[in-house]
Amino acid sequence: MASPDVVDNIREIARAARAAGQTYTQLPAEQRAGVLVAWAEALENAEVRAKILDANTQDVSAARAALARGELDEARVRRLVLTPAKLDSLCDGLRQLAASPDLLARPDLMRDLDDGLELVRQPCPLGCLAIVFEARPDAVVQIAGLAFKTANGLLLKGGKEALASNRALTAVLHRVLREHAVPTAGIALLEQREEIAAMLSCDGDIDLVIARGSGAFVHYIQQNTAIPVMGHAEGLCHMYLHGSYDPEAAARMVVDAKCSYPAACNAIETLLWSPGAEQAVLASLAALRGQEVELRGCPETRELFAQVGVASEQDWSTEYGSFVLAVRRVDNLDAALAHISRFGSRHTEAIITTEATAAERFLAEVDAACVFHNASTRFADGYRFGLGAEVGISTGKLHARGPVGVEGLLTYRWLLRGRGHVSTDYGPGKRKFLHRTRTP
Amino acid sequence: MASPDVVDNIREIARAARAAGQTYTQLPAEQRAGVLVAWAEALENAEVRAKILDANTQDVSAARAALARGELDEARVRRLVLTPAKLDSLCDGLRQLAASPDLLARPDLMRDLDDGLELVRQPCPLGCLAIVFEARPDAVVQIAGLAFKTANGLLLKGGKEALASNRALTAVLHRVLREHAVPTAGIALLEQREEIAAMLSCDGDIDLVIARGSGAFVHYIQQNTAIPVMGHAEGLCHMYLHGSYDPEAAARMVVDAKCSYPAACNAIETLLWSPGAEQAVLASLAALRGQEVELRGCPETRELFAQVGVASEQDWSTEYGSFVLAVRRVDNLDAALAHISRFGSRHTEAIITTEATAAERFLAEVDAACVFHNASTRFADGYRFGLGAEVGISTGKLHARGPVGVEGLLTYRWLLRGRGHVSTDYGPGKRKFLHRTRTP
Repeated sequence: MASPDVVDNIREIARAARAAGQTYTQLPAEQRAGVLVAWAEALENAEVRAKILDANTQDVSAARAALARGELDEARVRRLVLTPAKLDSLCDGLRQLAASPDLLARPDLMRDLDDGLELVRQPCPLGCLAIVFEARPDAVVQIAGLAFKTANGLLLKGGKEALASNRALTAVLHRVLREHAVPTAGIALLEQREEIAAMLSCDGDIDLVIARGSGAFVHYIQQNTAIPVMGHAEGLCHMYLHGSYDPEAAARMVVDAKCSYPAACNAIETLLWSPGAEQAVLASLAALRGQEVELRGCPETRELFAQVGVASEQDWSTEYGSFVLAVRRVDNLDAALAHISRFGSRHTEAIITTEATAAERFLAEVDAACVFHNASTRFADGYRFGLGAEVGISTGKLHARGPVGVEGLLTYRWLLRGRGHVSTDYGPGKRKFLHRTRTP
Repeated sequence: MASPDVVDNIREIARAARAAGQTYTQLPAEQRAGVLVAWAEALENAEVRAKILDANTQDVSAARAALARGELDEARVRRLVLTPAKLDSLCDGLRQLAASPDLLARPDLMRDLDDGLELVRQPCPLGCLAIVFEARPDAVVQIAGLAFKTANGLLLKGGKEALASNRALTAVLHRVLREHAVPTAGIALLEQREEIAAMLSCDGDIDLVIARGSGAFVHYIQQNTAIPVMGHAEGLCHMYLHGSYDPEAAARMVVDAKCSYPAACNAIETLLWSPGAEQAVLASLAALRGQEVELRGCPETRELFAQVGVASEQDWSTEYGSFVLAVRRVDNLDAALAHISRFGSRHTEAIITTEATAAERFLAEVDAACVFHNASTRFADGYRFGLGAEVGISTGKLHARGPVGVEGLLTYRWLLRGRGHVSTDYGPGKRKFLHRTRTP
């Protein structure tokens, strides 16, 4: 429980953020886009960048010390690291976001219910967002970009291990806002651990909590607030090698899906294969061993390839987040679908096959946010999907699913303009509704 | 707590409903539309209709007896009554739904991430819906229509006071499904009270609970399940008379908004007015008294019009659901906005004015699902909005807001088709994403 003083303080910050968000709504779309571009320019500036990377180095050194003491795990330290390439990605994302259509600018539905009775559905911000995230300072810029594009107020609460990085990034965002004479209260960085509990009790003043971090972390947030929470609690993704496929190409996809960023939620944890795919499996496992991935397999896989340890039943439901991969032979497509249905976290699932019917069945039947054919699971990402950055990847089915970008931060209001219209004039035997839909 | 046997039973029913829903997904869109039209035809058949109205008469007689014993309130009895006009409306809604576009038929977004790397966002059913509703047997047909259009499985749990009506309506729906050789398990009517608690514990097998009924009822449902709940807990709507407006036209809108169906959530509970609107207020209050509406007002309103009782502070936050209306003078538009922000339930709010700037400010600033200018609040309805019927009116901001039709019952999956693409080939200094969006 947070103390009442802290809660009151957070409520005030949330109300100020919402009010600032309302002023963002008033800005012309070009001006909002201009701020996003200016953020990218600032983050490309060598001097600014050096400061940010310095701050990050402080955080990372402290985290490595904590890792040595066993207080932090390695995946978390990896997520903490900022690099010039990551900053470039963020800048790219901001520019993409600036160039993307402004969804607040116009109704997304216009319908004349009758002459002079005009209905529009008008997109609008949710109001005030709160993001709680572990490690990954990149989130500050990504989420601030999406929140500002959608004119939402934003409360940011990062992990204490990333505090210096988060402060450095927020300072850059605020400076640019001030240079554009835009209120900074719309982006508030919270720094105290107690403020999480306080934030979670602010229903009514916070409209959406975005939780980014480990499954346990997201689960804790979901259990402890009446505010809707967006966040994937788990990313247990599979790649399924079905039938013969060019071994080298298959191995490239498997290695990309496992090794390019094992701590990411869209990395695979289990490789499935069925008879006929042996050559692709052998090439993949050899390539994975070349990357020093620890392999844990079923007896059939161990028979096929010597350097595979023993997998227990628990491996099928483990999100390693590191250089470990479970490998299992299944009898056929049906068995692969059954395995995925049982163990998958409904995040991202991929089939690698040359058989179109198998691929289409996989695409049609797997119940997950993202379902891929002949592509790495690592493409499941708002930036790669062209959403301009992502708030997170949602494994829930309501509101937004998969990588969540701008649309997930908006709601809408139904506006009706009449000339004295009353409902009792309409109905069977009376006036009929026109329901003439116009293109917005 | 529901007994384990009942829970197991409901889980089986839910799984069967989901599986039946999957077969509905396979049907060509025209065949699904054909079933909806056949439902309308069946409900227009004189013999069928007589049976339904007979069953309803049984329910209504029993309810009136319960009302006399003080066990049921009048609003609930009114909601229970089916009439030929209500059945006509349902048939109209079904035909409108049949004629509306099939959103499952095609992707709603298509984007080439690169040559040969094609992303689509494919709408799909949520899976299995459960609706819990008090009284109103109309809900059976409305919800079944929307669920079938969207290929969702459906569990229906109505109040026991509507059991005969619900059974008669469900029997008609099932008969038509059988005539079309479509599985009936996709629409399951539950009849035992204990089954509500069991349903609410079926997370994983039920994707969305739709709650329709009193605020207390919806609140109970929301507090007792881990499944997402869609439903408006309250409908405390206002109409605000601002400045001079043709008194007769204003009075027609006020009477429509209060008297045409006082038990509806989109009926008004409080009339606001500010100086300048006196003539419109006088005409409205006189018309309301002509309809025997009990008026409770502030001192200024009582001074203006004699037949107004005393309003207490509590009246501003009371949803009467009957022929009672609170009336309050506010100083100006700002004060009206403040009153609505404080007491409104974010459902539907209307301003009656000839002043365009006041109207546009009201439309821009009121944070509610529906905001109207010069039209009755009673238009806030899926059928009237042209959504083809509604699941309910949502006062939440996520997923769907206001009248919820077909779109609120769908989610989507991201499908990506590649040719061996890997993520590490892309990024700053490497391949660039195309992000070429195509019109679906």
